[in-house]
Amino acid sequence: MINRDDEKYMRLALQEAQEAMRHDEVPIGAVIVSQGHVIARGHNLTETLTDVTAHAEMQAITSAQTYLGGKYLTQCTLYVTVEPCLMCAGALGWSQIARVVYGCDDPKRGYHTYCQQPFHKKTVVEGGVLAEQCAALMQDFFKKKR
Amino acid sequence: MINRDDEKYMRLALQEAQEAMRHDEVPIGAVIVSQGHVIARGHNLTETLTDVTAHAEMQAITSAQTYLGGKYLTQCTLYVTVEPCLMCAGALGWSQIARVVYGCDDPKRGYHTYCQQPFHKKTVVEGGVLAEQCAALMQDFFKKKR
Repeated sequence: MINRDDEKYMRLALQEAQEAMRHDEVPIGAVIVSQGHVIARGHNLTETLTDVTAHAEMQAITSAQTYLGGKYLTQCTLYVTVEPCLMCAGALGWSQIARVVYGCDDPKRGYHTYCQQPFHKKTVVEGGVLAEQCAALMQDFFKKKR
Repeated sequence: MINRDDEKYMRLALQEAQEAMRHDEVPIGAVIVSQGHVIARGHNLTETLTDVTAHAEMQAITSAQTYLGGKYLTQCTLYVTVEPCLMCAGALGWSQIARVVYGCDDPKRGYHTYCQQPFHKKTVVEGGVLAEQCAALMQDFFKKKR
């Protein structure tokens, strides 16, 4: 169930996505929240780092683990502007994160296209938070690229 | 089709797995080969780095991209001692790698348990190269942990 803080944190993820956009990266951003505190932020850096693994979620997961000093994010929620891909969903699975909240769907590369349940069995997943704003950023980016 | 060099490169991946074992990491190793040259090596570092994303394949992919100065591994083969998980399979998908050769199956966390086709449509996949040696290392490790 979506709660009233979800839009607040998704706006922070959108700020990260806009930061990616400013660097000519696919505009996807993520934040990780633990007990009401933002403990990690990330945005897509695949072009900047020449690294296909440098997605927003991967940056945020690594950063949150460093902050917590542990591998498991069982008390955390990840907010990401676009449905995670298979790689990021797999990483979130390993992290045993409590909750994943995403903005817009990604019918082409989102994990749903490939499998239904990549997460830990206790992980709660919600999609569609500020979906229009999240999708609009992506559409703007790819329109400029054409 | 498995070729005569596959066992040679899988032995190098096994050396990486043994290196992981020496550091009390789950013993999985990987190498990436391009045009007959080993351009990247990696082994599992999840405990050392306190990072669920630090799998052997992820280390090797990032390293190969740095070596090549590009994001796409379309001329490369990845050798890994154990069937890739969903995260690593997703990363290999983004890299558009030409070929993935793995040792033993991982019925619990291998990508096959979750989805059938996480790779680029041109990627060729082979399993079962030196599978017994690859599996034996894993069994030794988990036996000691019990």
